Amino acid sequence: MANEQALTSRAEDFNEWYNSLVLRAEMADYGPVRGTMIVRPYGWALWENVQQALDRRFKETGHENAGFPMLIPMSFFEKEASHVEGFAPELAVVTHGGGETLAEPLAIRPTSETIIGHTYARWIQSYRDLPILINLWNSVIRWEMRTKLFLRTLEFYWQEGHTAHATSDEAIEETRRMLDVYADFAINDAAIPVIRGEKSEKERFAGAQMTLTIEAMMGDGKALQSGTSHYMGQNFARAFDIKFLDPNNEQQHCFTTSWGLSTRFVGAMIMTHGDDKGLVLPPKLAPIQVVIVPIYKGDAERPAVVEAAAAIKQELAAHNLRVKLDDRDNLTPGFKFNEWELKGVPVRIEIGPRDLQNGTVMVGRRDIPGREGKQIMPRAGLAQRIAELLAEIQANLLEKATRFRDEHTTDVTSYDQLKDAIDTGFARGWWAGDRVDEERIQTETKATVRCIPLEQPGDSGTCFYTGKPATKVAIFGRSY
Amino acid sequence: MANEQALTSRAEDFNEWYNSLVLRAEMADYGPVRGTMIVRPYGWALWENVQQALDRRFKETGHENAGFPMLIPMSFFEKEASHVEGFAPELAVVTHGGGETLAEPLAIRPTSETIIGHTYARWIQSYRDLPILINLWNSVIRWEMRTKLFLRTLEFYWQEGHTAHATSDEAIEETRRMLDVYADFAINDAAIPVIRGEKSEKERFAGAQMTLTIEAMMGDGKALQSGTSHYMGQNFARAFDIKFLDPNNEQQHCFTTSWGLSTRFVGAMIMTHGDDKGLVLPPKLAPIQVVIVPIYKGDAERPAVVEAAAAIKQELAAHNLRVKLDDRDNLTPGFKFNEWELKGVPVRIEIGPRDLQNGTVMVGRRDIPGREGKQIMPRAGLAQRIAELLAEIQANLLEKATRFRDEHTTDVTSYDQLKDAIDTGFARGWWAGDRVDEERIQTETKATVRCIPLEQPGDSGTCFYTGKPATKVAIFGRSY
Repeated sequence: MANEQALTSRAEDFNEWYNSLVLRAEMADYGPVRGTMIVRPYGWALWENVQQALDRRFKETGHENAGFPMLIPMSFFEKEASHVEGFAPELAVVTHGGGETLAEPLAIRPTSETIIGHTYARWIQSYRDLPILINLWNSVIRWEMRTKLFLRTLEFYWQEGHTAHATSDEAIEETRRMLDVYADFAINDAAIPVIRGEKSEKERFAGAQMTLTIEAMMGDGKALQSGTSHYMGQNFARAFDIKFLDPNNEQQHCFTTSWGLSTRFVGAMIMTHGDDKGLVLPPKLAPIQVVIVPIYKGDAERPAVVEAAAAIKQELAAHNLRVKLDDRDNLTPGFKFNEWELKGVPVRIEIGPRDLQNGTVMVGRRDIPGREGKQIMPRAGLAQRIAELLAEIQANLLEKATRFRDEHTTDVTSYDQLKDAIDTGFARGWWAGDRVDEERIQTETKATVRCIPLEQPGDSGTCFYTGKPATKVAIFGRSY
Repeated sequence: MANEQALTSRAEDFNEWYNSLVLRAEMADYGPVRGTMIVRPYGWALWENVQQALDRRFKETGHENAGFPMLIPMSFFEKEASHVEGFAPELAVVTHGGGETLAEPLAIRPTSETIIGHTYARWIQSYRDLPILINLWNSVIRWEMRTKLFLRTLEFYWQEGHTAHATSDEAIEETRRMLDVYADFAINDAAIPVIRGEKSEKERFAGAQMTLTIEAMMGDGKALQSGTSHYMGQNFARAFDIKFLDPNNEQQHCFTTSWGLSTRFVGAMIMTHGDDKGLVLPPKLAPIQVVIVPIYKGDAERPAVVEAAAAIKQELAAHNLRVKLDDRDNLTPGFKFNEWELKGVPVRIEIGPRDLQNGTVMVGRRDIPGREGKQIMPRAGLAQRIAELLAEIQANLLEKATRFRDEHTTDVTSYDQLKDAIDTGFARGWWAGDRVDEERIQTETKATVRCIPLEQPGDSGTCFYTGKPATKVAIFGRSY
């Protein structure tokens, strides 16, 4: 439960602010095994809303869910050269089962491309079996040494989409479509103004020919990769022999994609919108959109106020708002205000004896602190007004985050300018460097190419680093 | 994809019928690791409907979902003596992570009582923190040697509820409440007439003081334990030190419960309702409730028929029916009929040129095969009629399954009668035997006490086996 001690401010220590906020808002807790995470009910309810918002979009774009085993023979990982290089060092390995040593050790999936490849090879015979459009909701394990709740944990929850197609065009179209699905969700549901772009070769997924990403800027100016969509070409199809008979009766290898978004995205919401009082959750995804706090003195005033509060709860719930009535009688209103601010509930309704007389309530919005965010609303038509207010808050969060991102993005024409810019946010500049250049910049500044944005100026310029002619701008930043 | 070869009949070989049906209806497939299962999209869609039906009930009864890590320190299992005895032989053990040998081996959860106990001990301080009512949707691993798709697999999907209470009365009430939730779901959504009862001491969950169960009869007369709810008393609270300060400021141990229902239930639906043509899915849970098959000759007739079929699809979907239009043009109607019968779709609508003229469609119900189950329906008001037909099918499935169960349940007054009865179904009789009697019966007949039903005759009788006075009847059967 929240206590009254103030959070460390973001300016003072952003990391400490984040870590203590996640614990105190009861979003998550540490598991007993180092690096593991318990997602507490409040955090899980937020994740469930993320799941529903994505799952609806996946189904609208023709995908079906399935369940694949978590245990994968170790030998599967050796079939795709760059995939094994990327994932072998992070595997958790099961060597014993049912009291006996296993003949072949098994990995707990770090991602499922290998077992999917093995299976699709059996399921696909003809071009009529294509495309296969499957998504999995599950958890995976990657043996991370430096962990942080939601952002990087040994086990994390996610969805992984895996598709197989007859042509590269179709597979590339799918890769882009799913990036757009992620961007639409992030911008419109999570109010996070992500930048859609392509990863440089250095930052690509192990085994991919193209990795697309949505990149977000956190409240400290650092970048967070928030979802990725990979075009594999025929790499996995060749490694796992995923073939089909085309209409001319000739054997062809499929083209495959995969795409994923994880509980890391919960961290992105916290670090994009949160303030020094706690979480600020976007109304479309908030587990509780409206909290009602009855205000009364003593047992004489209580019944009428709580009854009115309960009636408001009913009314809002009937309008499909997610509403909670905090009628705990052992806590002060002030304590409750702090707690629900910490937990980022978008709208607070206060109701007391005078409101009862006046036929009004006091409404506060979480995104605008203090007096400024408060207003008196008439009881009549309250649900409609609150729904409109939630939409206004949703729009305001996106606008604020976009403004913050733009104010912390600097167009750079020299390496020195980049070095300055990345202390506070993103640096954007013409880029014609190669992998070696990128690694040197990373060593010297800790910044990496976050992405080559899909939206480009369209003309050309001079690379800020190499001085070569460049046709693309890249975005650099330090990242989580 | 389904092929035209007939299934093995249930009478001929029930096991073979089941195994080939699961594969051919594309419910599930074997994973590459022995004993693991791939749940294919059609099977997963059914499981998702089960999840939604249960999750709604869990939330209505005040529970919240959360996510707990799959990796559990091995030492946790030794804290509760009978729990370790029950689960240690079935553990999958991770000994390596990130390329190194782990200091302490980790188990992949076979069930989460231990890690829940460890965590609740940290979360619970005061009586005000109680009850804790949490549910997890996840998968667990138990190293089974004899596996069968859905019924018994190395990894399976389930939900596990874990609650902690201040008093034994409350915990027992919760244990019963969740059994009732399972029974309500099984009977009203899955059309499976389960019997609610208590397990004998021998069949109890490892660590429980009372295990309640819903027991179902499969199409071969065997029993399937379909969901269980356990009262742990203070066993786990003592083992993991889950304590709270009561209102008198004294430390007390909590009383805990757990309850689970798994993908095994999918197997129960298949074996309860399926027939020699394939699956027969209950309308409330069927991924596809209605399939529309357009009937036409040649390209001239096709457009008008398919257009009318698409309009019907729209209309039914607008009434929240789950409907599929099978407009594949490379397959005959007969092939499609077989496929959708195999897949157990409750209602089939056929529409051809003559129907267009007459303003009618032909409707077939999966639960009544052949001519008898077919009727002509007017196009006008079709959605409403189909919704009513689905409700009728739902009721009919429950009635058929109830009749089957009752016809295959024999009241027995002697051991010889039991031996006869269990060849075809359940034996029910007065029972005053102990664990040794039960084990002897099992060795000799392969039948076990499935449960002591909660609904009892109320009077008393003579134990069919020991001849002692008995106050309860028990149900015996062979089981999966």
